[in-house]
Amino acid sequence: MSAARAIAYALTHRKCFLAELMEFIRFPTISAQSQHRGDIARCARWLVRQLQRIGLDDARIIATRHHPIVFASRTTGPDRPTLLVYGHYDVQPVDPLDQWRSPPFAPTIRGSDLFGRGASDDKGQLFVHVKALEAWLQTAGALPVNVKCLFEGEEEIGSPNLLPLLSRRRGLLAADVAVVSDTRMLAPDRPAINYAERGALYLELDVYGPGRDLHSGNFGGAVHNPLQALSEMIAQLHDQDGRIAIPGIYERVRRWGSGERTRMARTGPSDDQILQDAQAKAPWGECGYSLYERLTLRPALTINGMSGGYQGAGAKGVIPGRATAKLSFRLVPDQDPQEVDRLFRSYIRKITPSTVRTVVRTISSAEPVLIDPHHAAIRAAHFAYRNGFGIAPILLRSGGTIPILNALQNVLGTPTVLMGFALPDDGMHAPNEKFHIPNFFKGIETSIWFMQALANAHRSNPLRTSSRAATPNMSAEAVP
Amino acid sequence: MSAARAIAYALTHRKCFLAELMEFIRFPTISAQSQHRGDIARCARWLVRQLQRIGLDDARIIATRHHPIVFASRTTGPDRPTLLVYGHYDVQPVDPLDQWRSPPFAPTIRGSDLFGRGASDDKGQLFVHVKALEAWLQTAGALPVNVKCLFEGEEEIGSPNLLPLLSRRRGLLAADVAVVSDTRMLAPDRPAINYAERGALYLELDVYGPGRDLHSGNFGGAVHNPLQALSEMIAQLHDQDGRIAIPGIYERVRRWGSGERTRMARTGPSDDQILQDAQAKAPWGECGYSLYERLTLRPALTINGMSGGYQGAGAKGVIPGRATAKLSFRLVPDQDPQEVDRLFRSYIRKITPSTVRTVVRTISSAEPVLIDPHHAAIRAAHFAYRNGFGIAPILLRSGGTIPILNALQNVLGTPTVLMGFALPDDGMHAPNEKFHIPNFFKGIETSIWFMQALANAHRSNPLRTSSRAATPNMSAEAVP
Repeated sequence: MSAARAIAYALTHRKCFLAELMEFIRFPTISAQSQHRGDIARCARWLVRQLQRIGLDDARIIATRHHPIVFASRTTGPDRPTLLVYGHYDVQPVDPLDQWRSPPFAPTIRGSDLFGRGASDDKGQLFVHVKALEAWLQTAGALPVNVKCLFEGEEEIGSPNLLPLLSRRRGLLAADVAVVSDTRMLAPDRPAINYAERGALYLELDVYGPGRDLHSGNFGGAVHNPLQALSEMIAQLHDQDGRIAIPGIYERVRRWGSGERTRMARTGPSDDQILQDAQAKAPWGECGYSLYERLTLRPALTINGMSGGYQGAGAKGVIPGRATAKLSFRLVPDQDPQEVDRLFRSYIRKITPSTVRTVVRTISSAEPVLIDPHHAAIRAAHFAYRNGFGIAPILLRSGGTIPILNALQNVLGTPTVLMGFALPDDGMHAPNEKFHIPNFFKGIETSIWFMQALANAHRSNPLRTSSRAATPNMSAEAVP
Repeated sequence: MSAARAIAYALTHRKCFLAELMEFIRFPTISAQSQHRGDIARCARWLVRQLQRIGLDDARIIATRHHPIVFASRTTGPDRPTLLVYGHYDVQPVDPLDQWRSPPFAPTIRGSDLFGRGASDDKGQLFVHVKALEAWLQTAGALPVNVKCLFEGEEEIGSPNLLPLLSRRRGLLAADVAVVSDTRMLAPDRPAINYAERGALYLELDVYGPGRDLHSGNFGGAVHNPLQALSEMIAQLHDQDGRIAIPGIYERVRRWGSGERTRMARTGPSDDQILQDAQAKAPWGECGYSLYERLTLRPALTINGMSGGYQGAGAKGVIPGRATAKLSFRLVPDQDPQEVDRLFRSYIRKITPSTVRTVVRTISSAEPVLIDPHHAAIRAAHFAYRNGFGIAPILLRSGGTIPILNALQNVLGTPTVLMGFALPDDGMHAPNEKFHIPNFFKGIETSIWFMQALANAHRSNPLRTSSRAATPNMSAEAVP
């Protein structure tokens, strides 16, 4: 079988691939918002038809208690390694809507970018592999590897139904290698393979004050305003040095040797680069660490949203009865989300003033993950990037979270390759999210080469047995 | 002319009066929200027709740059005192909408209360006087006093167009006494005349961080979150003792003697009563003052609203580019809103961290007001309450703000009587605002008696010359 013919097919079908991706983005698949349940179901059915059309077998929906999972597979033969392609077709909420230059679900090309919610996170990156599979099947009539596609609709809400499925359906999902494209490169000419993702713990904090909203003239100065109390509590979540002020929170955080930190300083983004990507005028955070280290080696606590009282135009003289914050931790090895949850709740109890009442709700959580950078599948990805982008990829840590990764490693025992095609300025989770169109096309070529390289690697040394997966203590120190 | 016949008319027309008030409340006259401009214009025209129908002369709309003013008058004779009846037909925003038991603009009777936005603030209280005028005109064919009605549609946004009108149209609006019903009694059996209102200064504070919303995994821990920075700044607006921490803010605050404070302790609401009205579990605020004093003698700074980041269902992993707070001061003699505005801006500049940028906007302001409680018109109101409610009213300070009051005193030189008919639990500015229906009817009787008493007082001692208005240094110490 010839990767070259598959790549030729991908080249001649670029226009069509892009049009199909735009069709995919049109579905408003916001998993956090129940009114989009029907949109998500429609998108799942569209994705099943897409997988059937390109030639996969048994493409189907696996129903869950909430949003459906899309599954398909294609077997070439027992001598081939099995690749699990994971992606998610759900997307983040779109607000603030007024900051979008074009509507989030009306995909729009401006320059070399395709704008739309989900363009890079994760519909575009998922579609990279779908189109690579199509190129192989339409040219060779078969794939160089056995493939299982697993596309979920709940990644952005913490994969609550996929994680139990992994345990229940180990046979169905068993694979020698998993590939996940839901991460970022450093720049268009600096492709990257991620070998670390932070975990996450998403919480809501309600502060209840007076039993009803009050007139701020008639009661202002005599009752503790829940918005003020909430602000005062949030101000106590970090100390003056940018560290999280919750006792015990750093106790299990792994310390890394100078080898790893030196390598990170050499290969990773500089402070200036990160500030430029963030469009931020000054750094912030924990003293003693570079920004790249703060984003990857160290935990973070972020206020994701606050609301309470009047938010409309002009003035309303009100003391609200309630105020709410959404906040989330990003966690690193060897922190445990459940323990952090307990520490947070205990600290909130301690700092809640006697004038108000607080309630904490846990929305979702995910474990941090480290991937062995020495695995043969990583070498195959390295080869694929060199062919697809013409440049060798670097090994990066990411500050983001992909809930399934831990289960892939520890439940299925499948080593995972994080092949990112998004860019730091792609606006993932933000207005005007985009996907860099050249990365879409180069990504497809990279995926074609990756499948080929995996098959070759397996022939010389069967992948599964050479695996060093599930040994998440690796640093990338020894990697060239 | 006979007050008794007017009262008999009011008694037989109760059902009709209530139905008309419900019609009045149906107009969603939210002055802060531009989409209600048409509703406000329609309500103003309805009010003009209402004033024409009850027999006032030259009822008309005075157009302004924004929401219209409704004016009407009726002259009985030059030997009669002239009463200016002020009220406002605009209302506060209605959110949080989900907390209303019945829709805010579908007036609903439950028990002895009429529920709806504006029921007490201020459509119901304004309508008390309209119906009193109707009762006089339909029975006696004339009024005991000359009357001018001035009903505005911008009170809840700080009366930006009425205040200049007062200066420009002194002749049109000249009066011996003004009556304003936009305040509260202590309880259904404890009517009250207010002799002090706090001023107000309404502001917005924006905090700008990164140039766009960011993925909280990819950037969490390396940039200062605007919501966190805003919370940290708000936490610095008060000190540990519940005092406003802005330097100089208390400098001009008038100190009151023990005579006034003792009288207030005797007649005003207790701490327990205020906490019960607020449905609050614990007091809060400036040490060394009773809650009633904190609400009236002392300034307050209230966070009226906060917003930023994701506020929808579930989780969104975002660091917002911007966060906003709405906040307002309530000011007391002899504070100057403009000076407080300067002090606030200077303090915000001082506490803004270098990692973010802040912008302060002034939305509206109003001066604090004191009314001479010894004026003959106050005695007339006292008499009227005794007849209308069967109970003598007490003299109260209010923590609220009515922007026009200062101009009535200092521009027109008109002494004002604040005859309140609302109750502390009426939910002014809150969901489920209501008006206590017995207070509506007793209010109409009280207004009928008030006009009669004013005419009588004027006969024995012309009101204007006996006035001690525009001497706002009075306490109620010597008042029985």
